[in-house]
Amino acid sequence: MSAQLIRGIPEVRGALARARREAKIIGLVPTMGALHAGHGRLIETARRECGSLAVSVFVNPIQFNRADDYERYPRTLDADLRFSEALGADIVFAPEISAMYPCPQRAYVDVEVLTDGLCGKFRPGHFRGVATVVMKLLNIVQPDRAYFGEKDAQQLAVIRRMVHDLDMPVAIVAVPTVREPDGLALSSRNRLLSPEERSAAPALYQSLQAAARLVAQGARNPEEVKREALAILARQPRMRVEYFEVVDPGGMQPVAEIRGAVLIAAAVWLGPTRLIDNLLACKNEQS
Amino acid sequence: MSAQLIRGIPEVRGALARARREAKIIGLVPTMGALHAGHGRLIETARRECGSLAVSVFVNPIQFNRADDYERYPRTLDADLRFSEALGADIVFAPEISAMYPCPQRAYVDVEVLTDGLCGKFRPGHFRGVATVVMKLLNIVQPDRAYFGEKDAQQLAVIRRMVHDLDMPVAIVAVPTVREPDGLALSSRNRLLSPEERSAAPALYQSLQAAARLVAQGARNPEEVKREALAILARQPRMRVEYFEVVDPGGMQPVAEIRGAVLIAAAVWLGPTRLIDNLLACKNEQS
Repeated sequence: MSAQLIRGIPEVRGALARARREAKIIGLVPTMGALHAGHGRLIETARRECGSLAVSVFVNPIQFNRADDYERYPRTLDADLRFSEALGADIVFAPEISAMYPCPQRAYVDVEVLTDGLCGKFRPGHFRGVATVVMKLLNIVQPDRAYFGEKDAQQLAVIRRMVHDLDMPVAIVAVPTVREPDGLALSSRNRLLSPEERSAAPALYQSLQAAARLVAQGARNPEEVKREALAILARQPRMRVEYFEVVDPGGMQPVAEIRGAVLIAAAVWLGPTRLIDNLLACKNEQS
Repeated sequence: MSAQLIRGIPEVRGALARARREAKIIGLVPTMGALHAGHGRLIETARRECGSLAVSVFVNPIQFNRADDYERYPRTLDADLRFSEALGADIVFAPEISAMYPCPQRAYVDVEVLTDGLCGKFRPGHFRGVATVVMKLLNIVQPDRAYFGEKDAQQLAVIRRMVHDLDMPVAIVAVPTVREPDGLALSSRNRLLSPEERSAAPALYQSLQAAARLVAQGARNPEEVKREALAILARQPRMRVEYFEVVDPGGMQPVAEIRGAVLIAAAVWLGPTRLIDNLLACKNEQS
């Protein structure tokens, strides 16, 4: 079983036209490459649910608010192709920048309110770039189902809202975060960490777990939950906290009081590398 | 031959699914209703080119920057249904506002630069509302071809750019403006004119024609062209000019010097009613 590497937009449309005529369910896993086991779970999930499966690999310049981040972002197309093929992808769509942005981009998708906080506050223009490129990829591939990781919780909420508000004919499927044995969420950026930074990194997940435990025990005050979590992060001298928030899972707005399910989300810096993670939490009715 | 009136989004998708399975070319004529012979030409053109034809009728609240304009906008659904049916439409899709905007809209399509001038300057938010609702209608109906009138030249340019930049799988077809015998471009707003305003209205087209004549004769200076056209409009005491511009037809930017084809576009007020019109012009090589 071999996956087809496709570079051009007309070519990928042509390749999928046959699957569409055969009424196969078409799946898309949009990625920026540097694939790891987290992407692997997306691809495996999609493979089980779809008759024809495309993985896109495109490091999207318009979602990077920092040029150095864009330049440092790992690029491993050969490995990505083999990885996708091994998990059963039919097509790896890896367009050139000139195919995706052939002339100055004038049309953008903006999702308001949901992008005000969390990563949106610290990465101006990021979610506009994400929503716009996902819109483009969905319009090119026209999948029935598209798969996104829960690790990027705000991105997932933004895309779900885009699809809902703009009546896009696609189902968005969320796939759980994959973690290292020590709890660190898999991310293409993890390979940029020095050994010292890598050993400090699991504190991020530990702080989320501590916060989730408090919520499970019935904590109502988000400030109290944040205080305890931030104390855990403060023990890592290499780590700088960008944000730590307790928000409602649909709208991504900070909650004044914890009732029902909340999303606990954080971003930290380790040297020049930014890591994000999140956990859904709610009161444990047995406690 | 009878057209089917459909109110719901799932229902219109279902009705078109059969046409799609039969590999018919699906056409969409998006309108705000109050259909006139200008829409008639859109529907007739689409009917010739498509195996299955939907006309949408939806007065889109988010593209009105003035509440009074939205409230005064004519609504004639029964007549629109008969009109569409007589011209061979298969489906008239007339959704309720609550179907199109079931919860607060957060996702929008923004087209930059092309919307800075002309109507975009005087109707803040208008083209965001237009692009967003057209995106929604295209995603609901999923036509192969969608038809727009050249009378709304900036709207046409915005939609073409949206479709291009966001890789939407639809062909946008432009249909020439239909005019009254005295030159007034057909518009749903014409029926709001008093008899006195109606008799002043043809000056708009006359001013565009005068400008186009100067361009045909080789005028290079847009200010000179505008001066002559504005003198014609100034003879109508009831008419207030909102803008009169000479722009490039693709990007909608004012030109400093007229070379090649230009779009001459104007908006005027007659009492509480705003009228727009435009003409494409270029130097007559015989002159």
